[in-house]
Amino acid sequence: MEKKTLLTHCSDAPGLIAKITNICYKHQLNIIHNNEFVDNTSGHFFMRTELEGIFNDETFLQDLDQALPEKAKRRLVSSSRKKVVILVTKEAHCLGDILIKAYDGSLDIEIAAVVGNYDKLQGLTEKFGIPYHYVSHEGLTREEHEEKMREKIDQYEADYLVLAKYMRVLTPAFVESYHHRILNIHHSFLPAFIGAKPYQQAYDRGVKIIGATAHFVTNDLDEGPIIKQDVIPVDHNFNASDMAQAGRDVEKNVLSKALNKVVNDHVFVHGNKTVIL
Amino acid sequence: MEKKTLLTHCSDAPGLIAKITNICYKHQLNIIHNNEFVDNTSGHFFMRTELEGIFNDETFLQDLDQALPEKAKRRLVSSSRKKVVILVTKEAHCLGDILIKAYDGSLDIEIAAVVGNYDKLQGLTEKFGIPYHYVSHEGLTREEHEEKMREKIDQYEADYLVLAKYMRVLTPAFVESYHHRILNIHHSFLPAFIGAKPYQQAYDRGVKIIGATAHFVTNDLDEGPIIKQDVIPVDHNFNASDMAQAGRDVEKNVLSKALNKVVNDHVFVHGNKTVIL
Amino acid sequence: MEKKTLLTHCSDAPGLIAKITNICYKHQLNIIHNNEFVDNTSGHFFMRTELEGIFNDETFLQDLDQALPEKAKRRLVSSSRKKVVILVTKEAHCLGDILIKAYDGSLDIEIAAVVGNYDKLQGLTEKFGIPYHYVSHEGLTREEHEEKMREKIDQYEADYLVLAKYMRVLTPAFVESYHHRILNIHHSFLPAFIGAKPYQQAYDRGVKIIGATAHFVTNDLDEGPIIKQDVIPVDHNFNASDMAQAGRDVEKNVLSKALNKVVNDHVFVHGNKTVIL
Amino acid sequence: MEKKTLLTHCSDAPGLIAKITNICYKHQLNIIHNNEFVDNTSGHFFMRTELEGIFNDETFLQDLDQALPEKAKRRLVSSSRKKVVILVTKEAHCLGDILIKAYDGSLDIEIAAVVGNYDKLQGLTEKFGIPYHYVSHEGLTREEHEEKMREKIDQYEADYLVLAKYMRVLTPAFVESYHHRILNIHHSFLPAFIGAKPYQQAYDRGVKIIGATAHFVTNDLDEGPIIKQDVIPVDHNFNASDMAQAGRDVEKNVLSKALNKVVNDHVFVHGNKTVIL
Repeated sequence: MEKKTLLTHCSDAPGLIAKITNICYKHQLNIIHNNEFVDNTSGHFFMRTELEGIFNDETFLQDLDQALPEKAKRRLVSSSRKKVVILVTKEAHCLGDILIKAYDGSLDIEIAAVVGNYDKLQGLTEKFGIPYHYVSHEGLTREEHEEKMREKIDQYEADYLVLAKYMRVLTPAFVESYHHRILNIHHSFLPAFIGAKPYQQAYDRGVKIIGATAHFVTNDLDEGPIIKQDVIPVDHNFNASDMAQAGRDVEKNVLSKALNKVVNDHVFVHGNKTVIL
Repeated sequence: MEKKTLLTHCSDAPGLIAKITNICYKHQLNIIHNNEFVDNTSGHFFMRTELEGIFNDETFLQDLDQALPEKAKRRLVSSSRKKVVILVTKEAHCLGDILIKAYDGSLDIEIAAVVGNYDKLQGLTEKFGIPYHYVSHEGLTREEHEEKMREKIDQYEADYLVLAKYMRVLTPAFVESYHHRILNIHHSFLPAFIGAKPYQQAYDRGVKIIGATAHFVTNDLDEGPIIKQDVIPVDHNFNASDMAQAGRDVEKNVLSKALNKVVNDHVFVHGNKTVIL
Repeated sequence: MEKKTLLTHCSDAPGLIAKITNICYKHQLNIIHNNEFVDNTSGHFFMRTELEGIFNDETFLQDLDQALPEKAKRRLVSSSRKKVVILVTKEAHCLGDILIKAYDGSLDIEIAAVVGNYDKLQGLTEKFGIPYHYVSHEGLTREEHEEKMREKIDQYEADYLVLAKYMRVLTPAFVESYHHRILNIHHSFLPAFIGAKPYQQAYDRGVKIIGATAHFVTNDLDEGPIIKQDVIPVDHNFNASDMAQAGRDVEKNVLSKALNKVVNDHVFVHGNKTVIL
Repeated sequence: MEKKTLLTHCSDAPGLIAKITNICYKHQLNIIHNNEFVDNTSGHFFMRTELEGIFNDETFLQDLDQALPEKAKRRLVSSSRKKVVILVTKEAHCLGDILIKAYDGSLDIEIAAVVGNYDKLQGLTEKFGIPYHYVSHEGLTREEHEEKMREKIDQYEADYLVLAKYMRVLTPAFVESYHHRILNIHHSFLPAFIGAKPYQQAYDRGVKIIGATAHFVTNDLDEGPIIKQDVIPVDHNFNASDMAQAGRDVEKNVLSKALNKVVNDHVFVHGNKTVIL
């Protein structure tokens, strides 16, 4: 008995749930969890089905394709542990949190490697027996630097890249080649305070709440589909540096929660939004 | 075209979703929203289906009953506005909140009447053109008092009774005759601080969070199925009276959110728990 | 025995707390609560002192002025109930919440009157025996309309104006004449989604959290000192209209919490920020 | 120039703030932050004063003792980094979180050692170069086991002991010898679900929120002064094991926030409560 997750999305039409569940039934696949959602604004249908049984992927997907509308997208994903490569710069809090959670099993991922444009986090990474690749950007064009990173990254055939406070902008070519497979943590409650020094901006504005946003990276800087956001209250006692410190806790929590949803195949990307089932 | 909601629950079995959605499909009922949940611990299946179309209730339910396991429970509920009767004692905050929300449409209910064992809230109720029945408990046994309240309540044929800080214990007979149709707001974060003066207890214990619990009333005092809970942080600055004041905000928010879920047919009761789809 | 609150702020200097509390001591005024805050970034000192005793305002303030740095600002405010005038347009939720809270005593204010540029909320207001002035803006310039509103407003000598979803922009002259005495509820988590249709913008962006911001009105539109912000989680199930509905709950809670802080003299304005003691 | 924190508490009396700040002023100690609180219910005064300057501890404290009421308690604490010893059993999440936060500086402590009654967390601890003492309780009385632990613990002269999911009950003698210096994380929202298997209890009760409580250990099991509590929402999708998993995130966040307050000298214990300034 194996476990897989079927992710289906397409234009809404009558009887879709019946059609899909009938096919599962016919293939003697037991539905453990099923969730669906219809976005009535766009008329789009989403369904996530956790299945258990003996899979014949080919005939199962053929049956599905015959039953579903023409442009339907479906993925049948094995429930095995996902492989991630983490990109970092200098800040330890997000990396540290993911390392610990992968170590104690509360985040079900395999961290294949960490790649950093500084060597500051090498020691922390290697404590956990995980390879660290120090790829400095010094004296390189953005393209040259990314090329050198890719040499390291691609050997691991990772399912996802996680930007755990990786502070450099990625080129469109790089982003495109990991389409909807790069997660980023944005140090702000998007769409607020885009750009540099968000906590200084938050302090200057006198906000009473600060937040963080985990999103897929697209070529609109800081504008990819949002997966998770959270906030914490702040007040006049917080200076810009206190806000940054408080923000770090939110950042790491938001990133690891988003990563958890993504690696367990709960997240659909639809246009510039996510549907999380 | 009419809208109805189908609520189905039964022991889990293969193909239930397919069976139910096939029947909807056959009856040309369009599924607007569908949510299902399987409680793997108890092996129980729950499904909530919002339907639109031309209903022949009888044949539709016959088809369902043939398809479903023998002890399955299903209700087909019209999406029309639910009627509630509110029971109160002296505190205005929960009643006031429901009155305003019903008035401005953010809570889609018809308040048929308010019944109170004091007359203190008569003025507030009547501002909104709603009948208030003052039924004092003075000099009456519990049974006699309830009998007099029922004379008032039952003329309205309400879908639900809401105890909006009604501070008297109801008899088993009364509770039984409105089975899973009485909502209560408990002035505490259950299971904590059951009994009298919960905010004094919370203060004495030095808690840093207080909360409230909305639940269906059963004959286990303060122990019915929980619908909604929420909390707010408190600290050493709060004395027992400040905690009570802060608690009122939580109480009214929790009660009206629970009521909203109930009157829109999102809530299943299963044993001593709720499943909210 | 009377109760008053002393609000002092000035450039920070050694011994300020000692100086102020010594003067209170000398005047035999008992300190019930005292809070102070030094903004180390700007070097500014804030202190809020709740006092009880027999006040000779003149000599007390003279003593203070001698002790404090030259540009110090101090106000000695009676703890009596503040008077507010509420401005509205068509939406009932914020007005309704304030009416109920003033009625049941959980917001300690006197609502002197409600002024609206539509008559839609007249009925609700008058239920509570509060005068409603319908001042249509139709066919009037902004200045003419405000002039007519002021005729109504100014007779009440209110401490604060509350914009409870008043949907028109105020002129600089109007704003200036109630300097830091106008509270607004912004239908968004500032600085996000400034401008029209914030919930549509939030929906289009696919955010996972929406919020609201209560602030003093200044002549920077939507940019006055923030008093209180709060948020609630949303997800793909929320369309733009659901977000607006959910947002209303946040709006009214944030506005009434901010108002509560303001009318109890907890709020200092400093530049474009607030310090809340 | 040195930094120290003065913590004063005593029965309330007129002029206390003036007296204390006058003495600081006289000793040319600059007040960086000052917070005070009067518990009007018990008539008790608390003040926390962060000072900067050149300290003559002896004369300063003599001056204070002369000025303060007879039974006043005052501590002048150096702002240097506190030393902690962590006690664990088998669960990694709280220990891991503290290790990472101490490593990246977001928790300003020195972890002197970790002591465990199993060896399971030795590997994790030693990754960070911190000594781990495995002191099995097998075949020992409670007193004998504690005696062996104390041999390890006491060599470090720690300021605080942190029970990071240490799952054994401590004897009164042990607790007494670290009076108000042992922090525990309770796997529940106290006072709810005291005892074994709290998440199973929470699941059985069908709660919609679970939480955790950090408190000082006293000889009332699970009943010491509460420092910090927090909660997260759960629903019918969570089985008992999911609740435990979700609870772990709350537990570690609550414990490290409480520890942060304690090691930065913000926490007063008063009876069975804390005042956090």
